Amino acid sequence: MPRFKDFRPAGVIPATLLAFNDDFSIDEAATRAHLSHIGNVGGISAITVNGHASEVHACSDDEQQRILDISLDEVGDKLPLINGVWADGSHEAARIAKWSEAAGASCLLVFPPQPIMLMQGQLKPEMGIAHFKTIADATDLPIIAFQYPVEQAYQMETLHRMIEEIPNLVAIKDWNMGQMHERHIRELQASPRPFNVLTTNSAWLMSSLTMGANGLLSGSGSVIADLQVALFEAVQQGDLKRAQAINDRIYPTAQCFYSPPATDMHNRMKEALVLLGRMPKAVVRPPLVKLTDTQIESVRLAIEEAGLTYDGADILQRAA
Amino acid sequence: MPRFKDFRPAGVIPATLLAFNDDFSIDEAATRAHLSHIGNVGGISAITVNGHASEVHACSDDEQQRILDISLDEVGDKLPLINGVWADGSHEAARIAKWSEAAGASCLLVFPPQPIMLMQGQLKPEMGIAHFKTIADATDLPIIAFQYPVEQAYQMETLHRMIEEIPNLVAIKDWNMGQMHERHIRELQASPRPFNVLTTNSAWLMSSLTMGANGLLSGSGSVIADLQVALFEAVQQGDLKRAQAINDRIYPTAQCFYSPPATDMHNRMKEALVLLGRMPKAVVRPPLVKLTDTQIESVRLAIEEAGLTYDGADILQRAA
Amino acid sequence: MPRFKDFRPAGVIPATLLAFNDDFSIDEAATRAHLSHIGNVGGISAITVNGHASEVHACSDDEQQRILDISLDEVGDKLPLINGVWADGSHEAARIAKWSEAAGASCLLVFPPQPIMLMQGQLKPEMGIAHFKTIADATDLPIIAFQYPVEQAYQMETLHRMIEEIPNLVAIKDWNMGQMHERHIRELQASPRPFNVLTTNSAWLMSSLTMGANGLLSGSGSVIADLQVALFEAVQQGDLKRAQAINDRIYPTAQCFYSPPATDMHNRMKEALVLLGRMPKAVVRPPLVKLTDTQIESVRLAIEEAGLTYDGADILQRAA
Amino acid sequence: MPRFKDFRPAGVIPATLLAFNDDFSIDEAATRAHLSHIGNVGGISAITVNGHASEVHACSDDEQQRILDISLDEVGDKLPLINGVWADGSHEAARIAKWSEAAGASCLLVFPPQPIMLMQGQLKPEMGIAHFKTIADATDLPIIAFQYPVEQAYQMETLHRMIEEIPNLVAIKDWNMGQMHERHIRELQASPRPFNVLTTNSAWLMSSLTMGANGLLSGSGSVIADLQVALFEAVQQGDLKRAQAINDRIYPTAQCFYSPPATDMHNRMKEALVLLGRMPKAVVRPPLVKLTDTQIESVRLAIEEAGLTYDGADILQRAA
Repeated sequence: MPRFKDFRPAGVIPATLLAFNDDFSIDEAATRAHLSHIGNVGGISAITVNGHASEVHACSDDEQQRILDISLDEVGDKLPLINGVWADGSHEAARIAKWSEAAGASCLLVFPPQPIMLMQGQLKPEMGIAHFKTIADATDLPIIAFQYPVEQAYQMETLHRMIEEIPNLVAIKDWNMGQMHERHIRELQASPRPFNVLTTNSAWLMSSLTMGANGLLSGSGSVIADLQVALFEAVQQGDLKRAQAINDRIYPTAQCFYSPPATDMHNRMKEALVLLGRMPKAVVRPPLVKLTDTQIESVRLAIEEAGLTYDGADILQRAA
Repeated sequence: MPRFKDFRPAGVIPATLLAFNDDFSIDEAATRAHLSHIGNVGGISAITVNGHASEVHACSDDEQQRILDISLDEVGDKLPLINGVWADGSHEAARIAKWSEAAGASCLLVFPPQPIMLMQGQLKPEMGIAHFKTIADATDLPIIAFQYPVEQAYQMETLHRMIEEIPNLVAIKDWNMGQMHERHIRELQASPRPFNVLTTNSAWLMSSLTMGANGLLSGSGSVIADLQVALFEAVQQGDLKRAQAINDRIYPTAQCFYSPPATDMHNRMKEALVLLGRMPKAVVRPPLVKLTDTQIESVRLAIEEAGLTYDGADILQRAA
Repeated sequence: MPRFKDFRPAGVIPATLLAFNDDFSIDEAATRAHLSHIGNVGGISAITVNGHASEVHACSDDEQQRILDISLDEVGDKLPLINGVWADGSHEAARIAKWSEAAGASCLLVFPPQPIMLMQGQLKPEMGIAHFKTIADATDLPIIAFQYPVEQAYQMETLHRMIEEIPNLVAIKDWNMGQMHERHIRELQASPRPFNVLTTNSAWLMSSLTMGANGLLSGSGSVIADLQVALFEAVQQGDLKRAQAINDRIYPTAQCFYSPPATDMHNRMKEALVLLGRMPKAVVRPPLVKLTDTQIESVRLAIEEAGLTYDGADILQRAA
Repeated sequence: MPRFKDFRPAGVIPATLLAFNDDFSIDEAATRAHLSHIGNVGGISAITVNGHASEVHACSDDEQQRILDISLDEVGDKLPLINGVWADGSHEAARIAKWSEAAGASCLLVFPPQPIMLMQGQLKPEMGIAHFKTIADATDLPIIAFQYPVEQAYQMETLHRMIEEIPNLVAIKDWNMGQMHERHIRELQASPRPFNVLTTNSAWLMSSLTMGANGLLSGSGSVIADLQVALFEAVQQGDLKRAQAINDRIYPTAQCFYSPPATDMHNRMKEALVLLGRMPKAVVRPPLVKLTDTQIESVRLAIEEAGLTYDGADILQRAA
């Protein structure tokens, strides 16, 4: 049973990283400390585990369950937990949904069935709908659909059908840009029932938020959740000058984290946590490979330029 | 000689359309009326002619010269004119640059050498640089480089070299999105000498402008220049609520103009001008093809929803 | 221990489908019958299980092991079995490699770590290499790397390094086209040690084979393995007229199976097997969705045009 | 009036290069010598001028007319000349068609209206059809449509309509790959009236030709027309072993000419002609930029590996 009943995802939702030991086993203590640190950031509304940021693609089913359990144990009384559902088959996804609900998650983040969407799956809306219906049949938890970009995206008409036919689909996490992102926000948040768009565009977050998304769900939140909260609030208040000033702090980290190859984004965030003293070491599971010293130095420069410390962004501390 | 010496492109710069007679010849009277109408919009800083919006791809060299001449005659005393340089060969481009300067243009908008950039031209920076150097050698006019998106874009290092080596390159018109757009704005506007990024992202203009571009250069300005001025000013003032309110008016037109196929964008704008009583008829040159009645009806709905009239956006009139 | 020691993948290698009951459980009897039918096709060199064609993305680990076991039981004495390794994390992939070897597979087909390669993983060759080294450390089986197209492909330099550093990498299954496909074939098959390129380009197989690939590994083989054997032999013999004649028979099936959306390719093959009387029913697991009657009719027309029967392609029977 | 009435493009059709003086003016003597050399290659069926290979994008209208005139003077009695129609506006294209016919061209190669097709023009078939109708109304010459790849391609249904509605459209020059290329060849060459597909896939020519295209039209023909003739004939005869042997000679040149950036392909061919003693110097017009010494050395190695001499491919001479 979810600890936070009728949770509706909105606001600032960090996705956490996963700490490993040198032998690539999960470092539970360090992971708990990371969760606890994030959980103490004022203003966040929930935490996502078992997402991209957590290297879910490299974790076994047992490990994913364990990660959810320790997360619930560490911060679950305080904050709703959203559990990632990483599976390409709908029945597998439904199975994950079930154990997530049983364990105490309050919401699900469902990744797209990637081999399907990669091979023109968007041309046959029934496939996306079948995927979510199979999951929705297995759980009462609210569901966030991860909306990948462009060719991998569920088309607008499909999204409208999904909202109509699947009552517990409550949000998308949107990875699209420009006009399509704005259209998602405007059309879907104007659905006949409450529905949120959460931006995942942390590489250009300020600009994305001005379009009116009701929240953000982002791996960058594992490092700069406090800046994201401040940014989200400034945008909500219509204070563009302040939003831009906060964005000036976020920008160096965005440029660093989201530089090519994109797949190293969470690798870089993990190194940032180490440099900030928030994680003891930065080990990634293969196929990810440890950053070089030069690359780590560029992470150091980025967090320095952003003015980050162990406690958070100093701009916010000075302002407080 | 340019009528506006040392013009630096910034602010709101509409690109105008071209009116045709039924036999596809240029309707000079209607084109002049359109230029005059745009020229009367308060707050714009310049006008671009012979761009995409003007169907430059379908005009002969003689016609392009005539268009510049009548534009100068109509609004050239009042506003700086930027002339599009549509040529794939650098010597052709230089020739156009020369007659533009002689006629009285104040600035050039140089399109990329498309067959080159389409075929991996960005891998050999010397080609982009050679193109602009050849043009710059032929004119003293300030130059705006049209920066196409992604694979067709001049790479960041190339842009830095271009700014260093070509003194009269003063701006880019940027068609990129997200992180790349923000990087262009931040890095290029921080060049050792004054340099502007003008956004051409009229499909998601408000959000784009919050990133800090010093101006916008847009075909949508042929229809909604007043809304663009109001939006640009609201963003400059940091008034996000007002910017969003103006964007609510712009959005229906953006959704309409920039829906697929993108190549019909100026076709739709031309119909909008007719519906608003600002142009007598909407004729396009092939390969563009007249919109269907259904499509024209969707243009009508968009301008109605946006609250546009002959004079401009009524929201602005009521506010005045 | 592999039943076929020192197996080197070459020649015609069908990838088999998986039969399901109406409740989506695996129909072992029908799957065995399918394997047996394929195993009886003269001239094939091996069979691949747990690949795309087998909906591996929708099967649990236990199911994948069971599929390998029954396949070995059914045809494993007769033909080498290649087991698909579908995992995004290298350790998970290594675990699958281990049970595959223990069960009796003779070779592995390793899918790319998709979330990595999709997000610019090709820019950091160390990641691809780490993935394969982790797997190679866990098994003595020969390994085929599935080489996805273009942006998802391991770059040429990376492939050369992989061949040099990973002795049991013995082939790629190449999904690239045109010049890149030819370069793969020529350069990699000319490696200092034996190395094969297996084409997976079944949508234009004849043309692909003329470039000289030493084999093909294809889901279409689940339906037209006999035509593929005949085609491969004709190309090996340099008999282009005969290859083209066989291709005339293959073409209707290729047009049907590989039409958009591509993700339905194996869905269509399964319906073909039903229409040919080789499988009792065509059930697919969600997110795949059953074809419509109209779509099934187009499959019927394709196999009719190709001259297929329960026994195989009648052109071959008549020739025999 | 065309010198070769009722010409139907098929077989091997080289597209010639253009020689420049150091001041970038056209070197007519060297261009004539090049035309004459190509015209003497046994087995070619026509020559294309004012195409990509001729840097048509960087030539003025007057120059294009002059190029056609000197080409007709040099080889026009011997071979049909196909003139490129490089224009984005349909009326401009029609004008070029007219002077081409008046001058004596036997056929037209019409480039796509690039800004249209680049911006989703394929979604509105009427645009492609309008373009070709406008041209066809202005001339009796047979027309080849250059079919660009994928998103820029006229869709299949559009091509069928074009063939039905435009009687003097007689061929496409196809730049697509794999399944789409094969479908073009099979469906269009099976049109109710004679219609040819000419491959432009010189980067993987042998494989492309086995699909059955009735001809090829290629810039590589400016260097290796004799090898292309030999290859085309081998494929026509069904002699795959010979085709592959000839392809072994072509391959080094294809790898060299068509390596990134693709836009340098004709630049490299021009250097090849110089190295072979067939052209006095290799000057390209900006934005193309002269190759570096290292790049020229790689051209030298390629033609050496291919066994090319002033007279042609030595393999062919030895065989003769």
